[in-house]
Amino acid sequence: MKDVVRVAICGYGNLGKGVESEISKSEDMKLVAIFTRRDPSTIESKSGVPVVSINDAEKWNRDIDVMIMCGGSATDLPKQVPEMAKYFNTVDSFDTHANIPEYFANVNKVDIENKHVSIISGGWDPGMFSLNRVYAESILPNGKTYTFWGEGVSQGHSDAVRRIDGVKDARQYTIPIDEAMERVRDGEQPELATGDKHWRRVYVVADETVKTDEDKKRIVAEIVNMPNYFADYTTDVTFITEERMKAEHSKLPHGGFVIHSGETGEGNKQLIEYSLKLDSNPEFTASVLICLARACARFIENNDFGCKTILDIPPKYFSPKDDADLRKNLL
Amino acid sequence: MKDVVRVAICGYGNLGKGVESEISKSEDMKLVAIFTRRDPSTIESKSGVPVVSINDAEKWNRDIDVMIMCGGSATDLPKQVPEMAKYFNTVDSFDTHANIPEYFANVNKVDIENKHVSIISGGWDPGMFSLNRVYAESILPNGKTYTFWGEGVSQGHSDAVRRIDGVKDARQYTIPIDEAMERVRDGEQPELATGDKHWRRVYVVADETVKTDEDKKRIVAEIVNMPNYFADYTTDVTFITEERMKAEHSKLPHGGFVIHSGETGEGNKQLIEYSLKLDSNPEFTASVLICLARACARFIENNDFGCKTILDIPPKYFSPKDDADLRKNLL
Repeated sequence: MKDVVRVAICGYGNLGKGVESEISKSEDMKLVAIFTRRDPSTIESKSGVPVVSINDAEKWNRDIDVMIMCGGSATDLPKQVPEMAKYFNTVDSFDTHANIPEYFANVNKVDIENKHVSIISGGWDPGMFSLNRVYAESILPNGKTYTFWGEGVSQGHSDAVRRIDGVKDARQYTIPIDEAMERVRDGEQPELATGDKHWRRVYVVADETVKTDEDKKRIVAEIVNMPNYFADYTTDVTFITEERMKAEHSKLPHGGFVIHSGETGEGNKQLIEYSLKLDSNPEFTASVLICLARACARFIENNDFGCKTILDIPPKYFSPKDDADLRKNLL
Repeated sequence: MKDVVRVAICGYGNLGKGVESEISKSEDMKLVAIFTRRDPSTIESKSGVPVVSINDAEKWNRDIDVMIMCGGSATDLPKQVPEMAKYFNTVDSFDTHANIPEYFANVNKVDIENKHVSIISGGWDPGMFSLNRVYAESILPNGKTYTFWGEGVSQGHSDAVRRIDGVKDARQYTIPIDEAMERVRDGEQPELATGDKHWRRVYVVADETVKTDEDKKRIVAEIVNMPNYFADYTTDVTFITEERMKAEHSKLPHGGFVIHSGETGEGNKQLIEYSLKLDSNPEFTASVLICLARACARFIENNDFGCKTILDIPPKYFSPKDDADLRKNLL
């Protein structure tokens, strides 16, 4: 490994900007370029590093140790990562849980052929939450793990509401149900359907076509009855002004809880809980990806090629500190 | 690795009994023997496995994949583990933080000479708490980590009280101070001395020499002014009967919190919290040690010898499930 890990960002949205903002806090990392699908001449980077067309990325492969892939999971990453892995080591936050096995296989094949390392599905869920599920289930096999999300903005649900006629803007917060969390913490090990664990709060800015209470009622009905997204949940809808939306709902907070309730011996209850409370979801995800880039460099150093996940990474690889320092000061 | 990891227990106290109780919950592990310093003929194991003198352990080294060392950190482990590591792979919960570097060096030397693996300082602190400190500090370098212990029984503090004249029995609970935890959770990043984070509750059974209120006052004064143990804390002392001590204070609950408060971007607060609430401290520590024995077997399989800590272990090594299963179902 070089003393400093040279990284680049591919995709300059919220997540890419988060990586750019946070990477300066790690002395062992250096940002060298940002790649984009847009016309690079229209973008100026906040950090001053070059902004380059994604089509020219290949030429940079000797200048970059790890490419941090910051595109979306729906369409960007499944195409971009197997392509980029021909030329680069990569890390990403692919989060379509159901498609991880297929995605892993595709990326791994390219990595092995090209002697590269890719770490996929980092971030917090999948990512830090996955880690905690594995640790907790392994330590207390006689137990049950519960994941609660929120309170936080779900972009997918917000987008779904925005597609309704008469909706100009919308923000959806996923909120854990306190009573359900308390039952879990009490060691009850309840069976909980997804709607038993969360409720949904929606803020809507109506457009100029919405004039009567009837119009608003129609929008509320369309939201609360939307299959998959809202039908199985308690949903609360509030109409607000555009100004209030901007003032109060422009951040992207999120978080959640992984709670494992287990039992040992003769009825001894044991509770493991991990939680995140995040003012900025993209900046936190970016912060995890930066650690994964550091870990990626360690795997490269060991000639340990192929596709990895956070479950393969020795915790010490997250840290810039050396082993003896960690043992002395953090163990 | 054999299909089943054959383990033995060295030291048949609370922790050893915890390992014996929990290991049956893991189908990939098998307990084969218990080693003791006492006369084995005076001990019957609950599980029915042979109880053997520690002096005869060496003869068993072809029958045991991993020896789980369950002695105390003060005097047992520093002597026993470097000796046992000549013949066995070992895991332990050595928890004298300040002596870990020296202990690591001693054990590592024996491991390397004998092509063995030892995983030291497992359990929860050091252990799972250490992991969480490393993860959190690495992800949010602009932040501060706080460890709170309790509510739980501190055996060291209980023992210290028992040494006072007139004390027949004692139990000391370490309890986090709620206000301090809330300040940390609010992102204030306060400077907290050790006495600002915890207070101590002591239950005392007085012996027959204690007759007057003056006698009790003398005991209270000796407790609350005891240097290192109590002098820097708020301490509450209650005298109770022997019966009540037995009925209400014979379990060994414990737990605690690792809270990391960090900041990203322009003033975005990010909070990571890990907590344990344990009815049985020894059974939980035992449960972690069993996972470390599994991890130990994986290192052996890879011919990756030497002394390790929990910071060296890929999380997947904790689990009996294979990589594809973990990616599909827990990531």
